[in-house]
Amino acid sequence: MFEIIKKDPLSNARTGKLRTKNETIDTPVFMPVGTLGTVKSISPLELYNEGFKIMLSNTYHLFLRPGMEVIEKFGSLRNFTNYKGAILTDSGGFQIFSLSKFAKISNGGAEFMSHIDGSIHIFTPEKVVKLQETFDSDIIMPLDVFSGPGVSKKIAEKDLDITLKWAERSINAKNKEKNNLIFLISQGNFFDDLREKSAIYLSELNADGYAIGGLAVGEDKETMRDMLGISVSKLPENKPRYLMGVGTPEDIITAVSLGVDMFDCVLPSRNARTGFAFTSKGNLNIKNSVHKFEKQPIDDECGCYACLNFSRAYLRHAFMSKEIFSQRLLTIHNLHFYQNMILNIRRAINDGSFTNYKNDFLEKRQQIASLPEDTSLQ
Amino acid sequence: MFEIIKKDPLSNARTGKLRTKNETIDTPVFMPVGTLGTVKSISPLELYNEGFKIMLSNTYHLFLRPGMEVIEKFGSLRNFTNYKGAILTDSGGFQIFSLSKFAKISNGGAEFMSHIDGSIHIFTPEKVVKLQETFDSDIIMPLDVFSGPGVSKKIAEKDLDITLKWAERSINAKNKEKNNLIFLISQGNFFDDLREKSAIYLSELNADGYAIGGLAVGEDKETMRDMLGISVSKLPENKPRYLMGVGTPEDIITAVSLGVDMFDCVLPSRNARTGFAFTSKGNLNIKNSVHKFEKQPIDDECGCYACLNFSRAYLRHAFMSKEIFSQRLLTIHNLHFYQNMILNIRRAINDGSFTNYKNDFLEKRQQIASLPEDTSLQ
Repeated sequence: MFEIIKKDPLSNARTGKLRTKNETIDTPVFMPVGTLGTVKSISPLELYNEGFKIMLSNTYHLFLRPGMEVIEKFGSLRNFTNYKGAILTDSGGFQIFSLSKFAKISNGGAEFMSHIDGSIHIFTPEKVVKLQETFDSDIIMPLDVFSGPGVSKKIAEKDLDITLKWAERSINAKNKEKNNLIFLISQGNFFDDLREKSAIYLSELNADGYAIGGLAVGEDKETMRDMLGISVSKLPENKPRYLMGVGTPEDIITAVSLGVDMFDCVLPSRNARTGFAFTSKGNLNIKNSVHKFEKQPIDDECGCYACLNFSRAYLRHAFMSKEIFSQRLLTIHNLHFYQNMILNIRRAINDGSFTNYKNDFLEKRQQIASLPEDTSLQ
Repeated sequence: MFEIIKKDPLSNARTGKLRTKNETIDTPVFMPVGTLGTVKSISPLELYNEGFKIMLSNTYHLFLRPGMEVIEKFGSLRNFTNYKGAILTDSGGFQIFSLSKFAKISNGGAEFMSHIDGSIHIFTPEKVVKLQETFDSDIIMPLDVFSGPGVSKKIAEKDLDITLKWAERSINAKNKEKNNLIFLISQGNFFDDLREKSAIYLSELNADGYAIGGLAVGEDKETMRDMLGISVSKLPENKPRYLMGVGTPEDIITAVSLGVDMFDCVLPSRNARTGFAFTSKGNLNIKNSVHKFEKQPIDDECGCYACLNFSRAYLRHAFMSKEIFSQRLLTIHNLHFYQNMILNIRRAINDGSFTNYKNDFLEKRQQIASLPEDTSLQ
């Protein structure tokens, strides 16, 4: 199911292959976010042809809209959305605690109010697994409790205990006859020993892969890196490791060096829709007036459709005029930038040059910010 | 420059070829509207590959945003937008009178206030031709006065006199060394004799083509048809005739039978963005709850990317979730529907079956509206 291809001699970075029911996925991998089944503004064909063989969708959102009966009628979420790659569905645990107007936890499950129409629902670990079996997701994520930064150790410990019990119930609820994979989510807030405890406990449950959750939620970079290091060190080496909701190019390349194999993040697509572009030399905001007359593309080292065909001046005009095509072009560009980075990371690990690549990449990414006409987004 | 290929024996319909500096365009032709240089939500490549070899942009809008200096720097509007077909630019006469916060007319020109930032500008017939020469438009449209429905004959006559003088000044202002084409716009409000006078006067000026303006602005279908008939009958037969801003599939096929060669309209793209789809059996609103579980495409006779790949249920879900990809899919579908209709119109004229085709088309288009589960947009 997961095979490690090559380990980097100077860090914990590694390449591998993950086999799901619908795809074989090279790792490290970046999974674009299609919360409601669609990566906003682009087609499933464009996504797949850009090399994204797995995307992420969200159980909480799809459960509320279009609802289970609709997706059930189509047999799977893949059939419904016409995306031919693999789909990992997040459980909705994070959304219940971040979007819902209220959320009440007991050992049984989580009661919450829809952010759309105020209706009340209950998710149990068992139900959430079944929902994802109805989606026929390639990878199922279990319900967990997200306690957020700044809570006391007592609360963090209580939330973790529930999460661990729910993890066990999720594994047991999964239909073993079906070939959907199930990952478990390592939590532990920002406490070293809780992170350790969580990783060790879940390792025993023999899931198909392990996520690291509850990070990149506002803490500083050093704390994130420390917590990630602890979680990864206690998770099984022979299983894929997935850092949820991360992140910037810098976060990703750092996490790869710590041994992470999988990532998802809204950044490349969400930021695209506000005019923010990632480039090899740093970040820029296409709405900035410095781009008004510029004939060059967003990134002269980029081979995406946007960079091969459109100037910064045109893109700025389209953005300022609120043309939705401009959001699509920047989404294509940002996703291409992420994919290109991931391809280079894999190549560098496989030929033993990862640390050099990482250092060069990080250094080069600081160029735009250091120019006098600073075009980076603050 | 314009060659009539075939005349229909039972109506005034005809096929032809129009040669512009960048394209040879088969007529009848439908020109999608890319006001600011982009047909909203789709790429210039998608537009061209769908067979649209000419699009319409707008001088008033482009003059205000991104401004002439930007387009001038790129050498042409085509270079700036990267659309490889021909571009017809409307003069902005209609926008000055419909969008601007105020518009003051004299024989010299039109003074108006930008709808974006309140700045004051003056367009003269000469300036508007020069602006379009800066765009290097394939087809230039002259500044005209749009007086709107319901005005007295006295006002209509005064406005027409200005329009005719401006037409002459526009023809004279055009740089004859350059191979941009210039059309003139036949007006006359809703008065038979003014329509006649306008068409006869402009015919003498030997433009490259003739538009019929001031129609489809709220008048009833019969009035529009009558006014159109008068204008067309007095315009030269050997020049292309362009009905501005029209219209529904029914309007277009009727106007073709009266001898119109060219059309532009925002309907297929603008309506797409509100969930409205044109189909061979009538119109439907994809947001209607009857589509919630429907596996069939928008139109089972359509071969567009949206119909070949997505169900009505998915499209409805994407629309209800405000996914901008859904606006793109419906834009692709509606433009494909229009293009397919135009191709069938040309084919029918060329093989002598236009009237039959027209009658069948109009009858079939009434199917959805007559079904009990009425899904048409009211």
